Amino acid sequence: MKLYEEKTVKRESIFNGRMISLHVDEVLLPNGHKSTREVVLHPGAVGIIALTEEGKIVLVEQFRKPLERSLVEIPAGKMDAGEDSETTAKRELEEETGYACKSLNHIASFYTSPGFSNEIIHLYVAEGLTKENRLSLDEDEFVNVIEVTYEEALQLVKEQQIFDAKTIYAVQYWQLLKVMGK
Amino acid sequence: MKLYEEKTVKRESIFNGRMISLHVDEVLLPNGHKSTREVVLHPGAVGIIALTEEGKIVLVEQFRKPLERSLVEIPAGKMDAGEDSETTAKRELEEETGYACKSLNHIASFYTSPGFSNEIIHLYVAEGLTKENRLSLDEDEFVNVIEVTYEEALQLVKEQQIFDAKTIYAVQYWQLLKVMGK
Repeated sequence: MKLYEEKTVKRESIFNGRMISLHVDEVLLPNGHKSTREVVLHPGAVGIIALTEEGKIVLVEQFRKPLERSLVEIPAGKMDAGEDSETTAKRELEEETGYACKSLNHIASFYTSPGFSNEIIHLYVAEGLTKENRLSLDEDEFVNVIEVTYEEALQLVKEQQIFDAKTIYAVQYWQLLKVMGK
Repeated sequence: MKLYEEKTVKRESIFNGRMISLHVDEVLLPNGHKSTREVVLHPGAVGIIALTEEGKIVLVEQFRKPLERSLVEIPAGKMDAGEDSETTAKRELEEETGYACKSLNHIASFYTSPGFSNEIIHLYVAEGLTKENRLSLDEDEFVNVIEVTYEEALQLVKEQQIFDAKTIYAVQYWQLLKVMGK
């Protein structure tokens, strides 16, 4: 669909970092006027809704510099160059939580902030978890793994410890499973 | 909560734009090593799940430069400086769709991309819609307003026309209402 397409007239590269890059496009609007669009490029990521045999979800607590606080989130991570999302999901689940999984099913994908970024997250449900590996975190990554019941997850939402899009979506997905008796 | 807090050693301001700003922090990690964090600051936004008397949801189609394509999304917009989220929700609903609403209820808030940005979205459900105003879009904003049934919304998800976090969440929320018989 090309509705109201904005043609790029000029692009200014601002920043190339470890995780993101930023450019500003001068664009031609549908009415012939010009404007600018600020664009943050991101490699894309996966998030994993990992459910244990005991009916708990596996979450990771980590410090988030943009918020200057910790959040409790589903395990997640960026896709490496050329890596497909299912491989990333298995890898990140093992690295961040030590769990391998017997089944992994894609349930949703979404752009997180289409107004200024191309970041996409692919969400998977992992079941048949087996704890067999030690954590293998990036050298600048520090996480605390916790496992909580559905009621505890709702409490974490209420306390705003769970407070990000992918994890809020995951809790609502879990609620839907419960309501549907699954 | 201050788990694994990362102390800022040095901050480099990279960009100050119309919508976002970017800085890079040099941080002291819990293990005493140093690393960098790329941070995109955003003013925050609201999204509105607007449900009509006919059982439809009001959506807007617009071109998203970071994706070089159009998406179909719930009405949304950035908070003006000093504006509370409920005021933004009423304003954006009217400006983007022409609808005023009798009731507006906050249902969720979430950070969209806590790994690199502080953007937060506050989601509201608007009901008792009355179409009384002409659209009042920003001068660089071009949207196409559509109203779709639940089944049509599911089809838009399947076709990846609905493809962003707040709208995917909204459709799942709507599904939950349906399953619960509301």
